[in-house]
Amino acid sequence: MKRDYSLADIAEFLGAEVRGDGSARITGLNTLQSAGAGELAFLANPKYASQLPESRAEAVILSADQAAAAVGNCLILENPYLGYAKISAWFTTASCQGAGIHASAVIDVNAMIKDDVYIGPNVVVEAGAKIESGCSIEANSFIGSGSVLGENCQIAANVSIYHDVVLGSRVRIHSGAVIGADGFGFAPNGEGGWQKIHQIGGVRIGDDVEIGACTTIDRGALGDTVIGNMVIIDNQVQIAHNCVIGDNTAMAGFSAIAGSSVLGRNCILGGNACVVGHIQICDNVTLTAKTLATKSITKPGSYSSIVTPLMTTAEWRKNSVRIGQLEDMAKRLKKAESDSTAKPDKH
Amino acid sequence: MKRDYSLADIAEFLGAEVRGDGSARITGLNTLQSAGAGELAFLANPKYASQLPESRAEAVILSADQAAAAVGNCLILENPYLGYAKISAWFTTASCQGAGIHASAVIDVNAMIKDDVYIGPNVVVEAGAKIESGCSIEANSFIGSGSVLGENCQIAANVSIYHDVVLGSRVRIHSGAVIGADGFGFAPNGEGGWQKIHQIGGVRIGDDVEIGACTTIDRGALGDTVIGNMVIIDNQVQIAHNCVIGDNTAMAGFSAIAGSSVLGRNCILGGNACVVGHIQICDNVTLTAKTLATKSITKPGSYSSIVTPLMTTAEWRKNSVRIGQLEDMAKRLKKAESDSTAKPDKH
Amino acid sequence: MKRDYSLADIAEFLGAEVRGDGSARITGLNTLQSAGAGELAFLANPKYASQLPESRAEAVILSADQAAAAVGNCLILENPYLGYAKISAWFTTASCQGAGIHASAVIDVNAMIKDDVYIGPNVVVEAGAKIESGCSIEANSFIGSGSVLGENCQIAANVSIYHDVVLGSRVRIHSGAVIGADGFGFAPNGEGGWQKIHQIGGVRIGDDVEIGACTTIDRGALGDTVIGNMVIIDNQVQIAHNCVIGDNTAMAGFSAIAGSSVLGRNCILGGNACVVGHIQICDNVTLTAKTLATKSITKPGSYSSIVTPLMTTAEWRKNSVRIGQLEDMAKRLKKAESDSTAKPDKH
Repeated sequence: MKRDYSLADIAEFLGAEVRGDGSARITGLNTLQSAGAGELAFLANPKYASQLPESRAEAVILSADQAAAAVGNCLILENPYLGYAKISAWFTTASCQGAGIHASAVIDVNAMIKDDVYIGPNVVVEAGAKIESGCSIEANSFIGSGSVLGENCQIAANVSIYHDVVLGSRVRIHSGAVIGADGFGFAPNGEGGWQKIHQIGGVRIGDDVEIGACTTIDRGALGDTVIGNMVIIDNQVQIAHNCVIGDNTAMAGFSAIAGSSVLGRNCILGGNACVVGHIQICDNVTLTAKTLATKSITKPGSYSSIVTPLMTTAEWRKNSVRIGQLEDMAKRLKKAESDSTAKPDKH
Repeated sequence: MKRDYSLADIAEFLGAEVRGDGSARITGLNTLQSAGAGELAFLANPKYASQLPESRAEAVILSADQAAAAVGNCLILENPYLGYAKISAWFTTASCQGAGIHASAVIDVNAMIKDDVYIGPNVVVEAGAKIESGCSIEANSFIGSGSVLGENCQIAANVSIYHDVVLGSRVRIHSGAVIGADGFGFAPNGEGGWQKIHQIGGVRIGDDVEIGACTTIDRGALGDTVIGNMVIIDNQVQIAHNCVIGDNTAMAGFSAIAGSSVLGRNCILGGNACVVGHIQICDNVTLTAKTLATKSITKPGSYSSIVTPLMTTAEWRKNSVRIGQLEDMAKRLKKAESDSTAKPDKH
Repeated sequence: MKRDYSLADIAEFLGAEVRGDGSARITGLNTLQSAGAGELAFLANPKYASQLPESRAEAVILSADQAAAAVGNCLILENPYLGYAKISAWFTTASCQGAGIHASAVIDVNAMIKDDVYIGPNVVVEAGAKIESGCSIEANSFIGSGSVLGENCQIAANVSIYHDVVLGSRVRIHSGAVIGADGFGFAPNGEGGWQKIHQIGGVRIGDDVEIGACTTIDRGALGDTVIGNMVIIDNQVQIAHNCVIGDNTAMAGFSAIAGSSVLGRNCILGGNACVVGHIQICDNVTLTAKTLATKSITKPGSYSSIVTPLMTTAEWRKNSVRIGQLEDMAKRLKKAESDSTAKPDKH
């Protein structure tokens, strides 16, 4: 589908001031460096300001103080990055499926499907499921019995939603994601093995949540696993049973939170950052990449562990082995200090 | 489905002693804190004992020495947690599918399917596969040629089982899991690139194994990858080609074991704990979360590496940079010590 | 299918010299230790040379200098491991599907499918997709609109390929992999939440690439995510939007590269090695297992961080806590040194 908008239309949508030719036609988005005729670029990070004079973009979204350096058409906005984010929806390359249920989909007669939803080929919807208005479910996805999709949810291909999972409105789930699988709950069976604890809770997900590809969110053991509103979750994230994730929190790829832990609002987990089970992380906490949070955090701020300086493997080997000697070094240091001070400095 | 049992029936199943009203009706399970009328709770961890007097549970599973403090109905058991685990099966919310093969399933005429299995919509079963009695395979899953599911296996939706994978009895596999994909085997091709090594082994999985969502277990290069009995595997775990995992071993989320390594029996891998290739870990070893096992372990016990104290990122930066100076610090400490001792302490 | 070749035929294919009986029949491959009658083994790693005299293999692939110690049939090659890799293709246990489109597949009338491709049950191919000659797409996989599979690609079951993804020739993708999901792009919305940045770029993948099970490769935000030729990617790897991966690079399980970062050619990422966003790693760099590359690398070589010696958890606790005291220790060491040198060494 060809996109083609006037700069003035875009300005109106964004609430931006046009400087230059409002009738210019915009047919795509691109970076400052790569944009050409018909393409709209943006300048958000000052370190790219030097690219502005040579940019061949049809127009640039930028802030008032950067606009002085621009020679071509401009859309002036206080927050150019947010403007770019908002207008990106007009240029999505994802095909928008019309309403309708593909003939190959298998919809239980006791599922409730609103008229205007799209359900793709080979989708399976079990009894008692409710699919609200405006939802789109792509090919080969599975919606288990009793699960609910709020309005305008977008479920990509090959998504698995178990039974009794409740999504709010505008939830977007990417391919390979699994919502509502059993939590990892087992009791030692007294004979060296394990007795499964059946996971009888569900999953509740708020509005405007995005869930990345191959991310897994387990159902609760007793009671639900709960994801707040506008939580954004990258690919291959693991959320264990009975976790609670506060509104607006962001979890980057390979981050994980173990059973029954609570993440506050507005938290950010860097890539592969993990949280052990049964702890509480308060609002406004950042865990840097690869950090393992081993205890509750009650004070907002940025926390780290594990990550150490990058060096050549040869240098690393020498330094790393010393980590295993730290207790010894610390004691020797204390001794060396007391030896020093024990000796008369003056004669 | 409404669950409704008498306390006496549950006591009989668990071999528990009833104290109070055996005719009380139990319709659900819940935590001590949240349970209400009709709900059975349990007290396993002494730190929750203080919740006992105020609990509104219909009945509580607890040990004899805790029972003194309880005012309501009790089920007295030596191991309350195991009792809760066992009875959880009576309250599962997972729908139990009746036997039958959905019309949309694609079953090769040369597959062997026992009469009482459930095969959901769009499931594909290839030639030579054998599905034993009592198995259930949910929507959109794939069973490759020659693979075998022992009795009472439960395969969730969107599971992929490649060819020549053999499961024991009562194996449960969650959505998105992939069993029998090619191991990561390549030889340098002498021109800077890679020559694929076709993976001609299979996968053998024991009885009573649980495999979490999006977990991957690769087939062997030559010979099989082998998972013992009652191994429990969380979500997003990676088991590489030709690994051997001993009975009863537990692997938490994001844990991984690289090619040809062997994990003993009764081992526990914490979250994101990894094992390098071609090593042996003996029985009864625990690797704490995020640990990387870089060499064989021959003595039972708990092992760790990598994880360091959680601190603010600002503090971390200061300490972390010192790790790169440890070799230097160790040498200087030695020098300081010898300077100290070289000097006469007494005059 | 029964494989049965003469040793002479195999020698001809590999360009190997036969020593012994070229008419010997080879029906399988196995390790030196396990091989029996009819099985071909190989000796690549000298540490297994001691197994050679007792091996019951029908024949062994080995180098000229090892051949002296062999008593049975030999195939003499300069690079036995590469020879084994090449011949493994003759013994693959994967069933080779004949050409044809299964009746249950849902192929849009505007998709272009070459005559000799195999498309399995319940596969969905959307409008504008192109499937070139020799491709094979297994059950329940999804190919989005406008995506292109070059010649002889092999797509396993339950793979998700979004729209506008372009694969070169001979690309192999394992089950559960997701190519072209949205990158993790969000702008703060000024109200504490997030504004989605629609990801309007695509994914371009070169020739001879292998992509493991449950691996995710996101589409670009603006412009494409690019994977070079002969890149080999293990299971559960995450490649974020707009990354560029150079030819021949290998990424082991759980490795990840964050947004807009560039990996050079011939790089190797060990298991769970991660690269932060917006950095460049030059050609011929190895990152050891679990390393986090936090800054650009401009010099070839092997780099490490994070990984520390494996020790018992008890020892680890003592040493680990000292890491949080390193800044203090470093200062005290400096003080101890200056105390030492401040004092007269001679009297």
